[in-house]
Amino acid sequence: MQMGQPVPGTGPAVLPGGYPACPAYPDSYSSAGDPMWTYFTAVADQDGEVDAEELQKCLTQSGISGTFSPFSLETCRIMIAMLDRDYTGKMGFNEYKELWAALNAWKQNFITVDKDGSGTVEHHELKQAIAAMGYRLSPQTLTAIVKRYSKNGRIFFDDYVACCVKLRALTDFFRRRDHLQQGVVSFIYDDFLQGTMAI
Amino acid sequence: MQMGQPVPGTGPAVLPGGYPACPAYPDSYSSAGDPMWTYFTAVADQDGEVDAEELQKCLTQSGISGTFSPFSLETCRIMIAMLDRDYTGKMGFNEYKELWAALNAWKQNFITVDKDGSGTVEHHELKQAIAAMGYRLSPQTLTAIVKRYSKNGRIFFDDYVACCVKLRALTDFFRRRDHLQQGVVSFIYDDFLQGTMAI
Repeated sequence: MQMGQPVPGTGPAVLPGGYPACPAYPDSYSSAGDPMWTYFTAVADQDGEVDAEELQKCLTQSGISGTFSPFSLETCRIMIAMLDRDYTGKMGFNEYKELWAALNAWKQNFITVDKDGSGTVEHHELKQAIAAMGYRLSPQTLTAIVKRYSKNGRIFFDDYVACCVKLRALTDFFRRRDHLQQGVVSFIYDDFLQGTMAI
Repeated sequence: MQMGQPVPGTGPAVLPGGYPACPAYPDSYSSAGDPMWTYFTAVADQDGEVDAEELQKCLTQSGISGTFSPFSLETCRIMIAMLDRDYTGKMGFNEYKELWAALNAWKQNFITVDKDGSGTVEHHELKQAIAAMGYRLSPQTLTAIVKRYSKNGRIFFDDYVACCVKLRALTDFFRRRDHLQQGVVSFIYDDFLQGTMAI
């Protein structure tokens, strides 16, 4: 990966608050003839939405994890929380497409960073990837993040994606309340918990 | 469970901000002759601390989950984050004792709430348990929380504990910055992420 370069689809521009501009994921799918639509409708409820367990099944069947381990239920839960702005705990097909595009971008990032194809990346590589996505974080915060998502000092694909999902979801939550885009938000306790407990 | 009654060791008093007073867990262990110490030192590193995988092994061997499924690695990670105020990603024996006391209180709550001994509790029972711990949350926040920690509409022990750990950890993080204890905190983006990404 060329560090310092924008990563397509993951929001390269940095705002004063230290976070990337709103990601604009490409909407390159139409449901007609789309295999994603087939997978999605096969597991969705009658209301046309999936919960975390159905999403896990759907993503596993779609093969997006490739040779990596399938996504854990926990990672699927925060994927839903990332896009679930009405707190239903479920995801419709439009949100699924948005997730799909983000997952493909993160997967491409991971493969680029994991130069030896070992299936894991190192601490400093995750830090570089986060910076390349447009996040401007302190060294202390970056260190806390990489420790949290490591196993035996390395970061696996599922944890890498969980980290990307959580970074984006928490940033989106913060940004929606940062009306002046200055990187400072005053939270009341209940709202703080509502936004962070699900992510 | 007697709803509205304080739960021992989980912080019954409510402050103006809507969160319970600082939990004061009993420190009833001394390491000499303590079987916890034996389990802990068997898995701890040379530096006398455990990471999330070692904590998982330690808790499983200690039998604290009883007839419930052992704690997932994800739950062990947030257990560490709950007490890891210096962001090392590890836990010493004093923090382990604090965790142990909290886990016993939560386990007792769960058994009390799960009246039919099915191993799961229902949505409204989790809401009642959260209120009984001293948290005063809006109905919307409570609903978002129970959806997040449910599987097929019910809450298992591991998820119940994950919910309790996360509630306490996020509340502690918020409270440490709420110097006037008014339930309102102004966060800068980097600090917000540092506190929430690991939990």
